[in-house]
Amino acid sequence: MSKLGGEVDRVMFDYLSRGSDADFLPILHHQVMAGGKRVRPAMTCLSCQAVGGELEMAIRPAAVIELIHNYSLIMDDLIDRGDIRRGKPTVRSKFGEAMALLAGMFYREALDELVGDCPNPHSIRALVVRTIKETIEGERLDILMEQAGRADEYLVRSRLTEGSLSLYERLIEKKTATLFSAACEAGGVAAGCGEAGMECLRGYGWKVGLAFQVMDDYLDIFGEGTGKERCKDIVEHKLGNAPVILALNEMEREEAGRFLGILGKDRVGRADVRRALSMIRRTGAERKTREWALRLAEEGKDALRPLPDSEAKGHLLELSDFVVERLY
Amino acid sequence: MSKLGGEVDRVMFDYLSRGSDADFLPILHHQVMAGGKRVRPAMTCLSCQAVGGELEMAIRPAAVIELIHNYSLIMDDLIDRGDIRRGKPTVRSKFGEAMALLAGMFYREALDELVGDCPNPHSIRALVVRTIKETIEGERLDILMEQAGRADEYLVRSRLTEGSLSLYERLIEKKTATLFSAACEAGGVAAGCGEAGMECLRGYGWKVGLAFQVMDDYLDIFGEGTGKERCKDIVEHKLGNAPVILALNEMEREEAGRFLGILGKDRVGRADVRRALSMIRRTGAERKTREWALRLAEEGKDALRPLPDSEAKGHLLELSDFVVERLY
Repeated sequence: MSKLGGEVDRVMFDYLSRGSDADFLPILHHQVMAGGKRVRPAMTCLSCQAVGGELEMAIRPAAVIELIHNYSLIMDDLIDRGDIRRGKPTVRSKFGEAMALLAGMFYREALDELVGDCPNPHSIRALVVRTIKETIEGERLDILMEQAGRADEYLVRSRLTEGSLSLYERLIEKKTATLFSAACEAGGVAAGCGEAGMECLRGYGWKVGLAFQVMDDYLDIFGEGTGKERCKDIVEHKLGNAPVILALNEMEREEAGRFLGILGKDRVGRADVRRALSMIRRTGAERKTREWALRLAEEGKDALRPLPDSEAKGHLLELSDFVVERLY
Repeated sequence: MSKLGGEVDRVMFDYLSRGSDADFLPILHHQVMAGGKRVRPAMTCLSCQAVGGELEMAIRPAAVIELIHNYSLIMDDLIDRGDIRRGKPTVRSKFGEAMALLAGMFYREALDELVGDCPNPHSIRALVVRTIKETIEGERLDILMEQAGRADEYLVRSRLTEGSLSLYERLIEKKTATLFSAACEAGGVAAGCGEAGMECLRGYGWKVGLAFQVMDDYLDIFGEGTGKERCKDIVEHKLGNAPVILALNEMEREEAGRFLGILGKDRVGRADVRRALSMIRRTGAERKTREWALRLAEEGKDALRPLPDSEAKGHLLELSDFVVERLY
């Protein structure tokens, strides 16, 4: 994955460097240089190959997907006032909010030029716009599902306090599954594959994306040694987290009220986190969340079944497990 | 201008409504509903007609230009923490920073779809990307020319403290002239006009854009009854203002140091503003700024000379004066 990642990175740097002032370059390059696992572009390349396309055709579409991802990370760190990501300072914390916002906007323009140089640019462009719109909607829901932490009158009034599974599913579809699905579809578009193959790739990416997000939420609450702050979602008042939602659905009305009371505190301290965590554990949400992620990953593999066997298909099947086990 | 503005607004509302959740619509529509003079789309339509195109062809390109403008306003209000614009609350102040950022991002996607439905979409798209990149660069320079007010270490270290005319010109070219020029060019593209006509339109928009910004700066410092806070640029520590730059270039070294000292104060109070204003007045910058704006407007009119006379050309010539006199 790392050799491929290098090629995708080169394309991103190239397009981010076009038409920008030399003094702006370190700011523009920071987000991409900060690393990441490049799992989405890997899916684009493997998807292209799995339907008979050449790897070469998939490099730019893969860079498109990774650039969308990095664009959304810059903007999300502004929204969440994130200082650290992957152990490194965010664009926002290193260069300030104003510069980070301008960098994010520039990413979107670089993206447009990169799309124009892809195979089947018209299809890729429609996919990109649809995907970014859905990602924006996902972030919107994520914010509305926060139970405290932002003083804006509009948000306080519009907050979504209902901890339903269907709302959570809508959230992670938009926030995560759409981009994973688009990653696979972009590979299919690059290969020029037909609707049947595309349906397999889309379905695979969708389910794997859901599995990825459920597992991300799992690791947020139960993960050890992930390098991330434990229970960050609880500290950030987020209702949109898989173990939180699964736990809430098992709790008696009164206990659920107490739990939501913690999420809704202006400041969620260490003792609050410990209490919330033990309430979650008592419901069996730990096991249920893992099982859910594994089931989704299996469904992802099932979606690929109609495709002819190939090395690339084999790698996609493995990747579905890796996404849950986080072995990549 | 108002009938035309209505048609352009309808197009913007239409594209902003596609693929967005019903609950998001009031946030998306707010910026466009907050009004504005629609001078840029008027220039697109008149430019199209001045080179022989039909008005109908120019409506969508005009909406493209106005949507870029509104996109940049949403983002600028985030950068400058603006609460009021045109006497109404900004998207940021009405719906909060997180929602405003998402709305801004959504504008960029709506823009992409609108571009795809324009005549000569390929040319319009290249123009849009180039224009937004330049606008980002203009905003970057504007921020770097602030002499205080942002605590980010990077900005404090990278501040541009040299009050040169050439830096100021670079700033307003990117911040304002590029979009005015693009407005006229978009009209030319819609009409499918040749390079000679395009050169006239581009040159006209460029000069009128510069005149507009110089006059905007003039009104900021000397304007009465504009509905805006007087000397807002000084309160906001901005070196990038025409009278400020022209005044600085007339001052003795020591006086310039005192003036920059005011701009660089953490908090610029009323007494500071009065002192700065009287220092500016003493240099004769008031007259010089007006003369500069008028000269630029004349140069804009000169650029149109090669075009055959027509009603639309006549309106463009008038518009050049109006932009300076703010009579529209």
